[in-house]
Amino acid sequence: MDIEDIKAGVVNGQKRAAAKLITMMENEDSRALDLMKELYHLTGKAKVIGITGPPGAGKSTVTDQIAKLIRKQGKNVGIIAVDPTSPFSHGAILGDRIRMNDLNTDPGVFIRSLGTRGALGGLSNAVYGTVNILDIFGMDYIFIETVGVGQSEVDIVKVADVVVMVMVPGLGDDIQTMKAGIMEIGDVFAVNKSDKEGAQRTAAEIEAMLSFSDKKGKDAPVLNITAKSNDGIDKLLSTIDDCYDNMRSDGSLTQRSKSKLREKIISILQSNLVKSALNMDDKTGMLKKLVEDVFDKKIDPYTASTILYKNFKMGDEK
Amino acid sequence: MDIEDIKAGVVNGQKRAAAKLITMMENEDSRALDLMKELYHLTGKAKVIGITGPPGAGKSTVTDQIAKLIRKQGKNVGIIAVDPTSPFSHGAILGDRIRMNDLNTDPGVFIRSLGTRGALGGLSNAVYGTVNILDIFGMDYIFIETVGVGQSEVDIVKVADVVVMVMVPGLGDDIQTMKAGIMEIGDVFAVNKSDKEGAQRTAAEIEAMLSFSDKKGKDAPVLNITAKSNDGIDKLLSTIDDCYDNMRSDGSLTQRSKSKLREKIISILQSNLVKSALNMDDKTGMLKKLVEDVFDKKIDPYTASTILYKNFKMGDEK
Repeated sequence: MDIEDIKAGVVNGQKRAAAKLITMMENEDSRALDLMKELYHLTGKAKVIGITGPPGAGKSTVTDQIAKLIRKQGKNVGIIAVDPTSPFSHGAILGDRIRMNDLNTDPGVFIRSLGTRGALGGLSNAVYGTVNILDIFGMDYIFIETVGVGQSEVDIVKVADVVVMVMVPGLGDDIQTMKAGIMEIGDVFAVNKSDKEGAQRTAAEIEAMLSFSDKKGKDAPVLNITAKSNDGIDKLLSTIDDCYDNMRSDGSLTQRSKSKLREKIISILQSNLVKSALNMDDKTGMLKKLVEDVFDKKIDPYTASTILYKNFKMGDEK
Repeated sequence: MDIEDIKAGVVNGQKRAAAKLITMMENEDSRALDLMKELYHLTGKAKVIGITGPPGAGKSTVTDQIAKLIRKQGKNVGIIAVDPTSPFSHGAILGDRIRMNDLNTDPGVFIRSLGTRGALGGLSNAVYGTVNILDIFGMDYIFIETVGVGQSEVDIVKVADVVVMVMVPGLGDDIQTMKAGIMEIGDVFAVNKSDKEGAQRTAAEIEAMLSFSDKKGKDAPVLNITAKSNDGIDKLLSTIDDCYDNMRSDGSLTQRSKSKLREKIISILQSNLVKSALNMDDKTGMLKKLVEDVFDKKIDPYTASTILYKNFKMGDEK
């Protein structure tokens, strides 16, 4: 499959072509990058929904159930499952994705797992590229689902238009302390497993915390759902759609898109800068020597990085 | 308190001076940076221990109990509590730290919470700086404790010599899928809350998974503890100490230190590169215009970041 076949395939809805292009993007293949530049103007049609929350909240099940409902409405769904927990294993380990056989075999559903990439900022850039590819590929909704919630997950779901925070009753004290940070990225809150004790209390607590916030999330809807038995999923999807429509009509979607674009351009820049600096260093071997010098306390790491910086700024590109 | 007072205070064990220097480092004050460069050769005496694991595992309690035991042995302890969950609230929200009144008032204990810094890579650099300051300050042990476990937490605990992974019985399926990634950063595994059902099974599962690994963690010890009632804490501390001593004698500590230094130098470089690029852009206002162009689909974000890159490479420093 050459790059022209991939281009035609992605635009004409061939899954294999889209899968191939995502892999090439992940591997930072320059032909994929050129194709993305060429096709970028075709993006912007999909609704991008982030699904995040603590481990054990049932995010996969929530995503699967919404995806099935969207399929019943005759629309296409992309799901990007992101696992940034492993710094070593390339490729994601999301065994639970195997469960969804009926979604996996559905031609209107595209599922992709993404694990940590080696490069700094690599995962969030890979997720961004995948969102764009699935958007060009014609998905009406694209879900970005994370394994847990942490800074890198926050960076990842920031690509989304609407962020759904999946919570769960009784996850312990740590969750309580996380809420202040979590709240700020959620546009919609879903307390999953609401057949369990304490679900109403958890929802009330979230509402109370939101009401004290002076941030944009003040009026974010809080829903009780039970994804396993499909309870409240229709309401959750219509809430997401309403949230999206409101953001579109009041102009906040545009504002958010621009601020996301700004961050994304900086993130790509950052990744390119450090890659070029290390690439240039490969020839001089300066970093290796500096590490030894810092280890021997001859210099400090701050000075070492300044030396590399100057070397990069003065150096010619290959 | 001028910078000379701070310098004298940190070297002579004044808590207020160390606290002040950490704040200056957090705020990227150039005088703090200069002082760090000057004092860097005094680092390298403390044992740095990372404490990580899923939310709700009781990491704070584990840290507190080990800290109390170390104090009984007459040694000093630094605790850095890191909460990278919030991208908005500067300063950390770790309410649970308030609980430890007996540690807070102990002159041989230094506790500091760190939250997300605005800059990219800012938190992990702030943690690194704080470790160095507490090392110079004369702490025998420095604990870095995270709220959850995700890519950024992994980046943070990588600063440590020994990483303790605190697990807990019955946290649900998501934890199972996280284990593959988690395993690889743990040197010691502690199944906390082992008075709960399933604790032995969780420990056996971890051991089984480790035995299949071909990574360095193959023989990592797995302990059952109950931090709340202080059960197994003495064994945990001696296991950490043994692990540290073994790593020192077989040369792996040196190897790890060098590879950590390498990553740290790159991370500081990366942060400096993007800061300078944005700083330079402040004068030209090019980024703002590029965001509008990308939003209007006149160009793509990859090309936009290449334009900024070239501008930075060609430009003169102020």
